[in-house]
Amino acid sequence: MDLLAEARAVSDGVDRLFERLLASRCDGRDRLCEAMRHAAIGGGKRLRPLLTVAASRLFAIYEERALRAGTAVEAIHVYSLIHDDLPCMDDDDLRRGKPTVHKAFGEAAAVLAGDCFHALAFEMLADSETHEDPFVRSELVLELAKASGMDGMAGGQMMDLAAEEEQLDLPAITRLQQLKTGALIEFAVEAAVIMAKLPPEGRTPYRGYARNVGLAFQIADDLIDHGGDEAAAGKRVGKDAAAGKATFVSLLGEERARAQAGLLVEQAVEHLHDHGEEADLLRAIARYAVERDR
Amino acid sequence: MDLLAEARAVSDGVDRLFERLLASRCDGRDRLCEAMRHAAIGGGKRLRPLLTVAASRLFAIYEERALRAGTAVEAIHVYSLIHDDLPCMDDDDLRRGKPTVHKAFGEAAAVLAGDCFHALAFEMLADSETHEDPFVRSELVLELAKASGMDGMAGGQMMDLAAEEEQLDLPAITRLQQLKTGALIEFAVEAAVIMAKLPPEGRTPYRGYARNVGLAFQIADDLIDHGGDEAAAGKRVGKDAAAGKATFVSLLGEERARAQAGLLVEQAVEHLHDHGEEADLLRAIARYAVERDR
Repeated sequence: MDLLAEARAVSDGVDRLFERLLASRCDGRDRLCEAMRHAAIGGGKRLRPLLTVAASRLFAIYEERALRAGTAVEAIHVYSLIHDDLPCMDDDDLRRGKPTVHKAFGEAAAVLAGDCFHALAFEMLADSETHEDPFVRSELVLELAKASGMDGMAGGQMMDLAAEEEQLDLPAITRLQQLKTGALIEFAVEAAVIMAKLPPEGRTPYRGYARNVGLAFQIADDLIDHGGDEAAAGKRVGKDAAAGKATFVSLLGEERARAQAGLLVEQAVEHLHDHGEEADLLRAIARYAVERDR
Repeated sequence: MDLLAEARAVSDGVDRLFERLLASRCDGRDRLCEAMRHAAIGGGKRLRPLLTVAASRLFAIYEERALRAGTAVEAIHVYSLIHDDLPCMDDDDLRRGKPTVHKAFGEAAAVLAGDCFHALAFEMLADSETHEDPFVRSELVLELAKASGMDGMAGGQMMDLAAEEEQLDLPAITRLQQLKTGALIEFAVEAAVIMAKLPPEGRTPYRGYARNVGLAFQIADDLIDHGGDEAAAGKRVGKDAAAGKATFVSLLGEERARAQAGLLVEQAVEHLHDHGEEADLLRAIARYAVERDR
């Protein structure tokens, strides 16, 4: 299991798909397309599409379909990064080692580029290229909309903004992160489960895996933000502490946070015990969650 | 045919539906919900849901479903108004006679409230409450995503921002408006056609109607912006002229613009010639397009 090679193959696939989707519709909207290309191509860990591809292996789903669904999730992630970086939100100048979209193209183009990725995600999932069964397509759309809207990512971001004014405790931080980043990571795995048409009772272990991995990644992010270096992270670090926000690290301390992340990864892997080597990529991703900040 | 009573019934239905959708999910996100309620409830002409309801009468679609689909279109419209009003976009303080969302709740809440309406629209369409046939649901999602993304509304808004730097001619303005406002108005009618499962060849007259009405409304908007009064419009007027932007009125002159809008309405009504009184509401909406600015 060569995680790096697998991740690179997914990243290349995501880039190619974004490139194809953007190239066909840039006529007369060059600046918008340039901004979208800047945001979407050649950057990021592509964790979400990698999870969709990895989970799809459990059910022998065509890799091309898994990549399309995963890229739709990534489109939502990209839109959220563009909007979160805006001056009125987190006000960041640097993202994935490059100027943020509003720094490079202006705020108006950044708002619109984010909005376009948002619509593009649903357009991709509702297209018969993603799946021939319309029931699967509409379930993918429904669950992604829930994961990204007020009951998911955007609702979590709003709680995060409010967190600057009140100190959150551990259950509140856990809930906030479950919405802000967890919901979309969970959907990345759920997309494969939906395409596999698993009955509701068969979905529990994969949801457990995704929930544990999502939380482990968030704790690892807090550890990087707490002690990491800017060049490696590709973005500003230490900003939660500067804003006086509670994080898993500020609440638990560095050592307990690291132990907690390790425990979550063990639990994530345990959820896959019915599977053999077809789950190796999912296992490798879970372990990477806590190893990347070393 | 009492257009005012019909429009009021649709407005009330849209308000009730938004109220219900927001009430169930405000826990812990009160400020976000308040911002969304401020933007969505008790305002606007509700032209788009009215068009969906009116077009649904041609095919005897349950009014409740038509209202749900129309409210999803309105959710996209509401998100676009919130984002377009932002300081980095059109920088408006007043909308529908009230302070804009960013004036009342701050810019961050405005960006997020817009994003939440965006996701909500797709969540509504993908839900089986809107239609029992998943093929219909996924076609609704696909077409709304196209109408609102870079090939539709958001792409048109980007062209509009670029228009401050170059003078557009009549074909370019027509194309811009077809994307910026026309695409979503066309989808409002198309939603009924999709729910009726009309074959592609049967859809042409309704698309013709929607295209003509959309353009007539835009010309009427330009006439209001050109000569209307702020109190009646509920928003700032004269801003296109102030920004040096070309409009239908600046290009055609007031009289020719008015004549052109009248011609478009006649053509719109002509597309409905196969229908009897079940199309009266669509006819009344078309006529209202040019009469409202008197």
